[in-house]
Amino acid sequence: MEWGSRWRCSLYFRSVQTALDSIETPAGRIESALGGAATYGSVAASLFAPVHLVGVVGDDFPQEHIEFLKARNIDLAGLQIIEGGQTFHWKGDYNADLNTAVTHETRLGVFEHFEPKLPDHYRDAQYVFLANINPELQLSTLRQVKQPKLVLCDTMNLWINIARDHVREIFKNVDIAVLNDGEARLLTEQDSIVVAGRQLLRSGPRIVVIKKGEHGALMFSEDGIFSCPSYPLESVVDPTGAGDSFAGAMMGYLAKTDDLSPHNLRRAVAYGSVVASTTVQDFSLNSLAALTPEVINQRYAAVKAMSEF
Amino acid sequence: MEWGSRWRCSLYFRSVQTALDSIETPAGRIESALGGAATYGSVAASLFAPVHLVGVVGDDFPQEHIEFLKARNIDLAGLQIIEGGQTFHWKGDYNADLNTAVTHETRLGVFEHFEPKLPDHYRDAQYVFLANINPELQLSTLRQVKQPKLVLCDTMNLWINIARDHVREIFKNVDIAVLNDGEARLLTEQDSIVVAGRQLLRSGPRIVVIKKGEHGALMFSEDGIFSCPSYPLESVVDPTGAGDSFAGAMMGYLAKTDDLSPHNLRRAVAYGSVVASTTVQDFSLNSLAALTPEVINQRYAAVKAMSEF
Repeated sequence: MEWGSRWRCSLYFRSVQTALDSIETPAGRIESALGGAATYGSVAASLFAPVHLVGVVGDDFPQEHIEFLKARNIDLAGLQIIEGGQTFHWKGDYNADLNTAVTHETRLGVFEHFEPKLPDHYRDAQYVFLANINPELQLSTLRQVKQPKLVLCDTMNLWINIARDHVREIFKNVDIAVLNDGEARLLTEQDSIVVAGRQLLRSGPRIVVIKKGEHGALMFSEDGIFSCPSYPLESVVDPTGAGDSFAGAMMGYLAKTDDLSPHNLRRAVAYGSVVASTTVQDFSLNSLAALTPEVINQRYAAVKAMSEF
Repeated sequence: MEWGSRWRCSLYFRSVQTALDSIETPAGRIESALGGAATYGSVAASLFAPVHLVGVVGDDFPQEHIEFLKARNIDLAGLQIIEGGQTFHWKGDYNADLNTAVTHETRLGVFEHFEPKLPDHYRDAQYVFLANINPELQLSTLRQVKQPKLVLCDTMNLWINIARDHVREIFKNVDIAVLNDGEARLLTEQDSIVVAGRQLLRSGPRIVVIKKGEHGALMFSEDGIFSCPSYPLESVVDPTGAGDSFAGAMMGYLAKTDDLSPHNLRRAVAYGSVVASTTVQDFSLNSLAALTPEVINQRYAAVKAMSEF
């Protein structure tokens, strides 16, 4: 497998914005732990392929997190570290069903004036993951990439609510849009996920993946609908980063295999689902960081076996 | 395929109780239309195998419904028709999400003093479907069957709330328990469907099927977990009878094939899902009655194609 000529750049929202999360769930709480869409997405993708991260943190960002990311073969040339700046911090908890995040506090810090800038050696990236961030920044990042082979974007309800037109604009410029069922309903104003998925497919991306948490994910494309179950978990510790891990693993697998056939796209969704199932089993990146190829393969086989008839 | 020696008896709750439904959904309304767990279950099963129905109606039950059921090759020797009695009538509507039924009026009528009695030629039944009814009546019916090969039961939140011990008792006496996710949570007092399914599996049945509406169904057994997607529908007209159709079709398919291997049980769940997806596309039994083998096979193939990776 030749990696030298393929680059993957993970543009994020929360590595910028999080780096530091304080979260409370029924299973416990953490203070100022490593988080962020780019962090989750990059670490998940790094399970499959080398990653080039774009983001911003303040100089309060702990050196141990830098070392952790470097040790995962994640290129940090695109990570701006702002002298005297404060890393984005999100504080929140979840409702009892663990599906709905409740924000208690958001400190933008260095994120307020962030302008993503790709180092020259990132601009040849073929696999581009525009992780959850302001859609205008997603677009300005994408414009710096010369000739991407596959572009995937994520988003969130915040941007759909306050920047719907820009979300629609970025959707016109990507190959794959990944969002959860609530976001799909919000963006399309449709109750039916089937209607929403098909409508989004007509709005630009040639592939739309709608994540449904414990109910798995649906992928809409010319190939029809693919339904991928979730790996069956008896409990969830912290859902933070599940969606970022899903999309990161999906892109990492596609970059590794460099195969965009319908069948391989299905496999990529299943890997996304498997890696996300790990993320939610502990706070922060604890379980994701400990994930081994053996566990990935075991869970992938289990999800495949669950689907066969 | 030899049918002569196999009998299937559909014990119901609502053919008794319904026969006549008045329902309002966002898609419209019906007054005193044919309904009932035994009706939906029997008609769904009759798509695959001959059916012997047990139930009760009043003499107000329209003759056209009797003729309709007879024309489906459904044996009505076990249907008690009470002179001067009033057929069970349910009046209700659904919340906007079409997942939660709201009862406006229930007239028990002849159901109040119903004692299911199997005609002699029913007692050799090998495939027994104890459709949704008071669990004590499910048990008294089951005791009249000599040596069943496979017993499946359904239930509902009403019985879990007012007769939990009897529901647990019937679960100890069946091979397959079918219930929806809300009922599984209510019965086990567990939030997690995975925990609930495994716990129910330890409580008696060797197979537990948890239906999740648009999110498909999970089957728990020694074979592990099988996840079956729902056939993708853009809209639902009336969810009434979906669960009864699901279980009826599942049992009909098992009776037809007489094959209880893990793989065939998975196929049976998929046929259940496919037939239920038809029921919800119109009021009463309108779409179920019009369902053809061609449409069943087309939807079955679509659900299978959705699952493969």
